[in-house]
Amino acid sequence: MSLIVQKYGGSSVQDAESIKRVARRIVETKQAGNQVVVVVSAMGDTTDELLDLASDIADTPPLREMDILLSSGERMSMALLAMAIYELGETAQSFTGSQAGMITDAIHGKARIIEVSPKRVQEAVDTGHVGIVAGFQGMSRESKDITTMGRGGSDTTAVALAAALNADACEIYTDVDGIFTADPRVVKSARKIDTITSEDMLEMAAAGSKVLHLRSVEYARRFGVKLHVRSSFSSKEGTWVIPDESQTVTIKEGEPLEQPIISGVAHDDSEGKLTITGVPDVPGKAAEIFNHIAQAGINIDMIVQDISLETQTTNISFTLPGAEGERAQRILYEHKDAIAFKELHFVPQVGKVSLIGGGMRTHPGVSARFFTALRDAGINIGLISTSEIRVSVITDVELLDKAVKAIHTAFGLDADVEAQVYAGTGR
Amino acid sequence: MSLIVQKYGGSSVQDAESIKRVARRIVETKQAGNQVVVVVSAMGDTTDELLDLASDIADTPPLREMDILLSSGERMSMALLAMAIYELGETAQSFTGSQAGMITDAIHGKARIIEVSPKRVQEAVDTGHVGIVAGFQGMSRESKDITTMGRGGSDTTAVALAAALNADACEIYTDVDGIFTADPRVVKSARKIDTITSEDMLEMAAAGSKVLHLRSVEYARRFGVKLHVRSSFSSKEGTWVIPDESQTVTIKEGEPLEQPIISGVAHDDSEGKLTITGVPDVPGKAAEIFNHIAQAGINIDMIVQDISLETQTTNISFTLPGAEGERAQRILYEHKDAIAFKELHFVPQVGKVSLIGGGMRTHPGVSARFFTALRDAGINIGLISTSEIRVSVITDVELLDKAVKAIHTAFGLDADVEAQVYAGTGR
Repeated sequence: MSLIVQKYGGSSVQDAESIKRVARRIVETKQAGNQVVVVVSAMGDTTDELLDLASDIADTPPLREMDILLSSGERMSMALLAMAIYELGETAQSFTGSQAGMITDAIHGKARIIEVSPKRVQEAVDTGHVGIVAGFQGMSRESKDITTMGRGGSDTTAVALAAALNADACEIYTDVDGIFTADPRVVKSARKIDTITSEDMLEMAAAGSKVLHLRSVEYARRFGVKLHVRSSFSSKEGTWVIPDESQTVTIKEGEPLEQPIISGVAHDDSEGKLTITGVPDVPGKAAEIFNHIAQAGINIDMIVQDISLETQTTNISFTLPGAEGERAQRILYEHKDAIAFKELHFVPQVGKVSLIGGGMRTHPGVSARFFTALRDAGINIGLISTSEIRVSVITDVELLDKAVKAIHTAFGLDADVEAQVYAGTGR
Repeated sequence: MSLIVQKYGGSSVQDAESIKRVARRIVETKQAGNQVVVVVSAMGDTTDELLDLASDIADTPPLREMDILLSSGERMSMALLAMAIYELGETAQSFTGSQAGMITDAIHGKARIIEVSPKRVQEAVDTGHVGIVAGFQGMSRESKDITTMGRGGSDTTAVALAAALNADACEIYTDVDGIFTADPRVVKSARKIDTITSEDMLEMAAAGSKVLHLRSVEYARRFGVKLHVRSSFSSKEGTWVIPDESQTVTIKEGEPLEQPIISGVAHDDSEGKLTITGVPDVPGKAAEIFNHIAQAGINIDMIVQDISLETQTTNISFTLPGAEGERAQRILYEHKDAIAFKELHFVPQVGKVSLIGGGMRTHPGVSARFFTALRDAGINIGLISTSEIRVSVITDVELLDKAVKAIHTAFGLDADVEAQVYAGTGR
């Protein structure tokens, strides 16, 4: 008998009607002969409402109490979902993160999972119940306190449970049909991807794709969990995210799908770009600069350095979350004399477009085709950053959508053209 | 250092403003040199809203899940209260019923406390925190599931904690100034009682007084906990409910208060009266009748039987919750032939007025004065029921308020007259 983990987000359970609809789906899955474990988020806007209540009371609420407050949202939805399942003639048992064996570290608000011991959940499904687990929460091993896991917490709960229970699949239900070759709101001709490797999905998520959180994809990759991202509003197949290229997923009878070379195009407009000019070209300057930035807890994305042979100075540019720009500049100015740079230039918002595909490793010519497509579309290229399976550029944010479309077309992603077409062009 | 347990009900914490007000009170109590443990109910109407959500989804929701749903209310309010205390410069730690060591039986929806092990709460106050505990909930020893305690649950949590922590006092905060000699909405001249024994309070609660739940008073009596029932809107002294007559509470300097003979007058209009006529006067008939009623889970209050010497039959009358009247009649009709009664008469709503006072034991003449007062006020007396410390009668519900006032006046409760005045009249 298969064991399937299903995760439903807040918009899927926003009111009584939605909860009943999700319950019907769960019961169908069970009656098709599967053991079913469900991870559920808080209803609709509950988490935001709780945050509002807290901010009415305190400017900086203590994190331990914040976690207790926020975790009550998932408890409500899990209990109501269990009740809806009973109404349909099946039985269900709901479990808090703690009862489901989600053991975390002690960092309130963004706890990491240390261990998963879902004994009670396993017993529940083995005795014929649907097992329901509150997403986004766990228990600190150290203090026995309730913890919440931060962004992507419910997805991560689902993946972690799927790994620990050795599930046959982990279905992530959302309000879109799956992962697309580009954001369908930007590229109308974007196609739904049938399968994608975890590795490519990781890059897509890091590069701006918002459907799946980076963290849960990484967890799935590490523990070999197959993810199926699909719509909670239809029964269409979604996108399979598979941990390993050598694994294939049979979707149509007898016809395994192999991995296309290119998975898709991602974009991100949340970053700014900071350029430090006239940095003396002596060892240790980059380390000094990025230590200051890191100590302030600011994450850096792309870094580029060029040297001016005439002046023996370098210019260092890097991208960071746009909202952190002010703070980063302040920190660098505080240490201006020590670093001895000339000037700072900050662009609050830049556009980043990325092409992702595991196949890049073995298929030369991808970067060339990428830059050519951008040139032909009149897109200026700022910073460039590449990895084995990704090539990204920074450009003006006003040109971002145009860049995404140009790349999508150049790689044959929007026509009904097979992936093999672009194989073999020289790198 | 004193340890004080304070309990705040739903109306005391109904919104952000109320929560902040309660937090100020808690902090004042702590800064006056006490260790403070707070038991809190869900905010305002939260519990009702959760019940509504559940009924939108299921007709008869499973009880285990219902407890999970309902218990989230107290978790929200305890976390918000902790945050408000932090804002005032003190520290607090909140605990679920389970974390606070409230161990119960497995009866969801009306769990009884088996054991209280408040180790973490004690540690919290010993290290200078305010300890906050979610009222109304615990954990089943057997199944490790969350349980809720039914009516009076939060009061009972507070009393149980006070007993286990050996608290110096257990303050029950409510929206009235304390326990009154009669319901102040019926008797304008009712006085606030300064002290009352648990024993008298038990009878008052059983006889209709709604301020304190029977269950928490019994727990306080059994474990020797002193209760202080007071208003959350003022700092006036309320009513002390003391476990033992021999204990006294010093309220004014150097002036211990002794127990007045009469505590007060209670009334109840929630009962109906069922009369079974022509029951054969043979042994076992009463047992047969009340076994049927008991098996249906219906609680009986007062029972009266009279015998007709001519017809060798008896009439049995009893009072029960008005809402159970239909069901009780149905059950008796089902067994009509076996019981062999003649007819059933049901009055859906009767009035019950009770005079309560431990001093009745040692002061004769109370019943006589009671009946005289009712006669003088033109109140007809139906059933009579007495105990050592209580005398109750059933009358027409339309005459109930008049009866309450008449008794209150007859026993000198509304004038500024000392209790001693009515001692010594023959019983």
